[in-house]
Amino acid sequence: MNYTPLQFKQGKLWLLDQKALPAQKRYVVCHSAQEAARAIQEMTVRGAPLLGQVAAWGLYLDLAGTLNEREWKRRFGAAYQALGRARPTARNLMARLEFLKKRFYEGPGPCRDRLGALKKFLKDQESEWQAITNGMARHGASVLKRGCRALTICNTGRLATLGRGTALAAIEEAHLQGKLVHVYACETRPYLQGLRLTMWELKQLKIPGTLITDSMAAFLMSQGKVDAILTGADRITANGDTANKIGTLSLAILAKHFSVPFYVVAPEETIDRSLSEGSKIPIEERSHDEVTVIAGKRLAPAGTKAWHPAFDVTPHSLITAIITEKTIWRPDFVSETRNPQPATRNSL
Amino acid sequence: MNYTPLQFKQGKLWLLDQKALPAQKRYVVCHSAQEAARAIQEMTVRGAPLLGQVAAWGLYLDLAGTLNEREWKRRFGAAYQALGRARPTARNLMARLEFLKKRFYEGPGPCRDRLGALKKFLKDQESEWQAITNGMARHGASVLKRGCRALTICNTGRLATLGRGTALAAIEEAHLQGKLVHVYACETRPYLQGLRLTMWELKQLKIPGTLITDSMAAFLMSQGKVDAILTGADRITANGDTANKIGTLSLAILAKHFSVPFYVVAPEETIDRSLSEGSKIPIEERSHDEVTVIAGKRLAPAGTKAWHPAFDVTPHSLITAIITEKTIWRPDFVSETRNPQPATRNSL
Repeated sequence: MNYTPLQFKQGKLWLLDQKALPAQKRYVVCHSAQEAARAIQEMTVRGAPLLGQVAAWGLYLDLAGTLNEREWKRRFGAAYQALGRARPTARNLMARLEFLKKRFYEGPGPCRDRLGALKKFLKDQESEWQAITNGMARHGASVLKRGCRALTICNTGRLATLGRGTALAAIEEAHLQGKLVHVYACETRPYLQGLRLTMWELKQLKIPGTLITDSMAAFLMSQGKVDAILTGADRITANGDTANKIGTLSLAILAKHFSVPFYVVAPEETIDRSLSEGSKIPIEERSHDEVTVIAGKRLAPAGTKAWHPAFDVTPHSLITAIITEKTIWRPDFVSETRNPQPATRNSL
Repeated sequence: MNYTPLQFKQGKLWLLDQKALPAQKRYVVCHSAQEAARAIQEMTVRGAPLLGQVAAWGLYLDLAGTLNEREWKRRFGAAYQALGRARPTARNLMARLEFLKKRFYEGPGPCRDRLGALKKFLKDQESEWQAITNGMARHGASVLKRGCRALTICNTGRLATLGRGTALAAIEEAHLQGKLVHVYACETRPYLQGLRLTMWELKQLKIPGTLITDSMAAFLMSQGKVDAILTGADRITANGDTANKIGTLSLAILAKHFSVPFYVVAPEETIDRSLSEGSKIPIEERSHDEVTVIAGKRLAPAGTKAWHPAFDVTPHSLITAIITEKTIWRPDFVSETRNPQPATRNSL
């Protein structure tokens, strides 16, 4: 595929502007952690696993050129703060920052050496995530049956991670294996990541797909046209509760009603074992304007109040399995299972 | 309220253009049945009960000036055909045309007299529907509890009927009685009737409301913030299955999951006892462009395939009660009930 959501070159971070897709393929260039944090907040980039890498490069940008240890720690701390606040629900962002802090905040070695090691680490992440997303793709495809028609929400492909993606990687892999015959993509209001990004990626991948509004999923399922639902995750707690794009909980409840298996596909990094359950996940609430203004036009009456939680929480009881690069987890995390037996009306 | 969706004056039918609201308050003028049918097809007017009256005036426009009986029948037949096809799911449209055919197609009396009687009948419908919608409002409000926070979809107010509306009339009445404290309106993709029309009507009625995307209903309900769901209907079959705006089925399934009562509010005219069950209702599929183009902008990638059923069907088993101007029906139509006892987690 000739698109990548993130590149580091000429000492700068180039981000494919996901707000401009599919109409335009243009890049936003970041020169600092502050600019990287703004790109995250403004949704220039999104996709929890990708945000981990964006934050990491943002940190690198601020650390580059640091001459002494004191300056290093000051810059590290400030960048860490700015980036850590940018998207509170996404686990990968904080997880990556915490990891980098442990590894690169202090010696051994002078800070110039640590900067080089940090850069090498970040470059190595590209092949690392190729392997991680390949693992998710393989495990995800393994639970789908021949002839499968999958439903998904938001965007979980190459635009959402380094590598191939999460849920969409599993869908792609199943398609390559000849198992998957069709994808239905929820448009994913208010940001329309499904309509804009997933439909665009499906086109690049030559996977047959149909766009639906989020409100059509129930009617589609009532006609027996969905065999599995696959979604990504922004954060998974120790008990398997999962925060993901707003609208995911609705799909999980519909899946239960229609006895369709509901799979979460995410890297191990997304699992936050420090939180016992989903109610403890901070849910980012965003501006009303993102609901009332579409395509630059204010469509709602002046003064309209709107609610805009960017994510919702799906309890583990509604999840058939959580699929990572490592294994296929039962959603209650009591045990691993390589062979989930989802109840499905639509067994093929 | 100083807005009415339909007026007959100067020998023409004036329709408030519901596609232009809330940005503009402008009227589309119809001079013939063909123009009225086009206004229905193009969504200039919508709301099943209102469409009955639009079709009736469309018929009148073509019959006006008819000199002889043969011409009358020819014109009647052609207008009946054109209008009857305009919106296949809406029961009221066909019901009204069938009623008018029985009463005005043939004598007694010369056609000029029948034209006068038809005009009087159509004018009388205004007070008639004031009474019908008052009845729905009273019955609907009676099932809501003090402190109620209601969720609704699409638009079911004064823009959707002659008179006060269906579900929104019940909500208004409960608000006037001091029982209802808040309304959540689903934006209702793809046409955004909730975002554009319901939020506009709530503002006129001074009822506190919050807009949500259709995908947020589940998360809102999971937080215990919805005490009742009220929707309108486009057609109700003999067993209580209900076709309504796409997205309604999803809300009904969520209502069951969260033990929130789910009420359908509609006039008796919407009940089609000639159909045994919901699977027999014709569901209008509309253009892909209505999903992929928003606010005049094509937001989806070129060549995107979309599905666009304008309605879905909610089985009666998911409906707590069907509320009409006449009574409160159990959804299976076995008996009337003045006192439905829905299971509700959120009893107030």
